[in-house]
Amino acid sequence: MRWAEGFIAVDWGTTNRRGYRLGPSGRLEDRMEDDKGVLSVAAGGFPAAIARIRERLGDLPLLLAGMIGSNRGWREAPYAPAPAGLEELAERLVWVEPGRAAIVPGISWTAGDAADVMRGEEIQILGALADGMVGEEERICHPGTHNKWIRVEKGRIASFRTVMTGELFSLLKEHSILADLLAGPIEPGPAFEAGVRHGRAHDDLTAELFSIRARVLLGKAKSEDAAAYASGLLIGYDLKTGLDGPGDVAVIGRPDLTRLFAAAIRSCGRRAREIDGEAAFLAGARHLAEPMR
Amino acid sequence: MRWAEGFIAVDWGTTNRRGYRLGPSGRLEDRMEDDKGVLSVAAGGFPAAIARIRERLGDLPLLLAGMIGSNRGWREAPYAPAPAGLEELAERLVWVEPGRAAIVPGISWTAGDAADVMRGEEIQILGALADGMVGEEERICHPGTHNKWIRVEKGRIASFRTVMTGELFSLLKEHSILADLLAGPIEPGPAFEAGVRHGRAHDDLTAELFSIRARVLLGKAKSEDAAAYASGLLIGYDLKTGLDGPGDVAVIGRPDLTRLFAAAIRSCGRRAREIDGEAAFLAGARHLAEPMR
Repeated sequence: MRWAEGFIAVDWGTTNRRGYRLGPSGRLEDRMEDDKGVLSVAAGGFPAAIARIRERLGDLPLLLAGMIGSNRGWREAPYAPAPAGLEELAERLVWVEPGRAAIVPGISWTAGDAADVMRGEEIQILGALADGMVGEEERICHPGTHNKWIRVEKGRIASFRTVMTGELFSLLKEHSILADLLAGPIEPGPAFEAGVRHGRAHDDLTAELFSIRARVLLGKAKSEDAAAYASGLLIGYDLKTGLDGPGDVAVIGRPDLTRLFAAAIRSCGRRAREIDGEAAFLAGARHLAEPMR
Repeated sequence: MRWAEGFIAVDWGTTNRRGYRLGPSGRLEDRMEDDKGVLSVAAGGFPAAIARIRERLGDLPLLLAGMIGSNRGWREAPYAPAPAGLEELAERLVWVEPGRAAIVPGISWTAGDAADVMRGEEIQILGALADGMVGEEERICHPGTHNKWIRVEKGRIASFRTVMTGELFSLLKEHSILADLLAGPIEPGPAFEAGVRHGRAHDDLTAELFSIRARVLLGKAKSEDAAAYASGLLIGYDLKTGLDGPGDVAVIGRPDLTRLFAAAIRSCGRRAREIDGEAAFLAGARHLAEPMR
């Protein structure tokens, strides 16, 4: 079981995980995806869980990234403080099986009272950097359950801020008084862009969310526009945090989410290019595994 | 079963209800409270539900306020458009049992694209007005699942705005990544006031919420302060919508909530007086029932 023969990279999140087998040349050979996120694995259950990943993808070394390294995961991998690049991550790999299975640390950032953390996005961002998908000086948006706005300086993650946009939309959609209005599909379009405009221009997010329902009740808006408007509203408000200076934005992540965020950024007259988060993850995994191969 | 012999007033919300028996003189004689909100009553189940209220509190006429008059309740009671006072509510009572049981309508407000609705708060606010607890020209804050900021002009509800503060805090506490941090008790104090200050001064609510967790993870804040800070943050952000001009504020509602909102308003250097929502509800019920007695 040598790294030179290939390895398995796992993006192991809170509620699901994706595993990839990379061959001797680094080529993607096989993949799996399921809902066995870290919260579904009992304490002490991780050795058995990775045994099953190896049964599925091959008896190979493992590189594990994401919430697997949090205090709810297998073993806590202390954050690398920003500024941090691939070197800092490589130095801090936590070996849960000596020489055979390593957890990638997250990155922390502090400045005065401000503080932030990431786990899982760093490997994608630094992979995109190492493969030249993004430049040495970039503003990056990484949408997901928690959207991250990242400043890359001198080829490293210099600072970042997390916005709970995705999780808040899910909470509203699943559990709130707006739930029945938010069930529909979300596409960039006039309702989405109107939401973005309101979110960017006003400072009344928690009131405007209720207005969505009131307008439908009073016949001043169509219920089928509500989900796109609400999504645009939350994303537009999110842009206040991240789109605070000039320059283009590289949007990295799941294609359905990068599409929405890129549309919102473009509707503000700014340029955004979309980068597939999976390709960025695989690039990061290849670069991190390089010294072992 | 005549109104002159007394009546029952019910504040019938989405998830719970409170019933009060008022005697011939209007004195509170008995009360009940349970979790039989409108969502727990099946379609067609309301006649049986009020029969049980009468078994419990007496065979008397009924005045029903709150979500019982919504499209999820017994029968929809169309909103009275603002400006509206007790007269407009009385004119629009919906009689579900002729002469014996009436539903109080809510109030709607529109202006250009803006739109808002209330059901249940109007009887409290107009009751407080009719009994002189608030004046003819007032700014009112009514915290609850949805906080309402109301302008009273010439003794009527002139305009209002709803903010989802209470519901958002509940969603975060029950279902979000912040859940374990928000379980603690919330008291006005330094952490709460720091949250209010941040919410009022900044425009990054959905990012600052995540920072609460990051600061605890990185040892920059104490987990036991997180719930009070988060509550203060949401309330401080809420004040941006409602505390937009000069003047005192009358805060009407559940004492535990009016205490928090009044503390937040006072920490901004403004005066706030607290009015018990139950007393205001009973005042409104007495005034609305007066013409029938």
